Amino acid sequence: MILLLGGSGYVGEAFQKLLTKRGIVFASIARHDCDYSQPETLRELIRKTKPHFLINSAGYTGKPNVDGCELDKENCLLGNSVLPGVVARVCAEEKLLWGHVSSGCIYTGAHLDGSGFTEEETPNFSFRTNNCSFYSGTKALGEEILLSYPECYVWRLRMPFNEFDGPRNYITKLMRYEKIVEFTNSLSHLDEFVSACWETWERRVPFGIYNVVNPGPVTTKGVVEHIVKAGISNKKFQFFKDEAEFMKVAAKAPRSNCVLDGSKLLRCGIKMSDGYEAVDRALKIWVK
Amino acid sequence: MILLLGGSGYVGEAFQKLLTKRGIVFASIARHDCDYSQPETLRELIRKTKPHFLINSAGYTGKPNVDGCELDKENCLLGNSVLPGVVARVCAEEKLLWGHVSSGCIYTGAHLDGSGFTEEETPNFSFRTNNCSFYSGTKALGEEILLSYPECYVWRLRMPFNEFDGPRNYITKLMRYEKIVEFTNSLSHLDEFVSACWETWERRVPFGIYNVVNPGPVTTKGVVEHIVKAGISNKKFQFFKDEAEFMKVAAKAPRSNCVLDGSKLLRCGIKMSDGYEAVDRALKIWVK
Repeated sequence: MILLLGGSGYVGEAFQKLLTKRGIVFASIARHDCDYSQPETLRELIRKTKPHFLINSAGYTGKPNVDGCELDKENCLLGNSVLPGVVARVCAEEKLLWGHVSSGCIYTGAHLDGSGFTEEETPNFSFRTNNCSFYSGTKALGEEILLSYPECYVWRLRMPFNEFDGPRNYITKLMRYEKIVEFTNSLSHLDEFVSACWETWERRVPFGIYNVVNPGPVTTKGVVEHIVKAGISNKKFQFFKDEAEFMKVAAKAPRSNCVLDGSKLLRCGIKMSDGYEAVDRALKIWVK
Repeated sequence: MILLLGGSGYVGEAFQKLLTKRGIVFASIARHDCDYSQPETLRELIRKTKPHFLINSAGYTGKPNVDGCELDKENCLLGNSVLPGVVARVCAEEKLLWGHVSSGCIYTGAHLDGSGFTEEETPNFSFRTNNCSFYSGTKALGEEILLSYPECYVWRLRMPFNEFDGPRNYITKLMRYEKIVEFTNSLSHLDEFVSACWETWERRVPFGIYNVVNPGPVTTKGVVEHIVKAGISNKKFQFFKDEAEFMKVAAKAPRSNCVLDGSKLLRCGIKMSDGYEAVDRALKIWVK
């Protein structure tokens, strides 16, 4: 049996769908039903349900976007930094193996040659580097806390999307914003993401951090071209002149735009499709 | 009525003593009796007890010293960063004024001329500056969260001590460590500290951050001389060659040693005695 924390979130629901499709028994727990951020509550839950693996897909993301975190810092910190620490400690004590949904938004940029950051590289968009949004700071701090717990998977997600139009979907976001910015980014097709995470456990690959992204980074303009070509939107996309104008006009917190290297996952035999290919697949079967 | 959170801690007990001596009605709450880190629990407590001021003296300090925080990061973060945010939010919603016991250990060093850091200066020993212990990082992050809540007092404590021998007392620590290091530091006489904090509220001085320290920083060697002169200890005090040797041999996490400027408090008419004078007073009536 699999225990799924944060099962009602955007990523949690994708895990639910995956586990259901694969016929795997799981219990999906939402924090408003059972406050698993309390160590004793979590321990009781584990002892009662006796799972053989736990997935923590709970986390705090701001609404409607990362700027929301700037207004609720304590809950952001609780959900993204304290909670992974609590889960790690209780799982270690209960000898339960587990995986944590982290975020790639703890990096900014790419290497000079365009290549992405590997799991070996320290996050460069964090409280430690003092250039980040509060959201990214808390996600990086969560990973920092997990460094003391080597027996878990840390799965890094980046700008998730799939074919279902919705406020958390990267493709939807691009279409809904009045103006957008040109950046190069690694993305994670949500269903490929949860499937790849699950495979790390199923194949018992070594514990540790994994960049779970579609290889082949994409650009905002590139994705927009694919959206238009697919006939999903015929709006005239407006672009900010540059990041500076975007920050001045539209954003409160700095944004992470980055390229991640997904080769560690691939070396374990877990393949994700190319970025644009994944985007095209979603666009082809787009569901409003 | 005053609501005192963390009343069973080292600082909390000093607040209890002060309020009792002054005949002020208060309720001292310990987190193991009532988990005030939960917003709803705190709100209920406030509505039930109807305080006219709240003091948060709760916080997570490692045992036996700051190195302990490195082993329990999530609770350190919960107690020092999330909790102040929760208290701030609930107090704002309930229109309750309050004060928070922070720490001066979010700075390192002093200005080149030996003068201390003022409240206007951004902490330089924090996650943001990436040179700190986990403890200091969480205390600074707690203050950062409180910046969104201008209606509270933030009282910075530094290396507390008084005449009562005990594991949290700076003078005791100096006597118990096998070897010590020469540093210049601002200290806070614990009873003077709580008294000064209380006066900020009693006099209704402007809300904000206050360095609540004894003016006139002290050196480790200076305090040791006073200990020896007072006849409290006749041990031969051993010193590390320098901070590097101390860090290599005895410490896990980097230590904050710093001088804070206490003049903002003084400008409000709240006077604390000179550092060595406060040390001498404690030594004169030392209680084993």
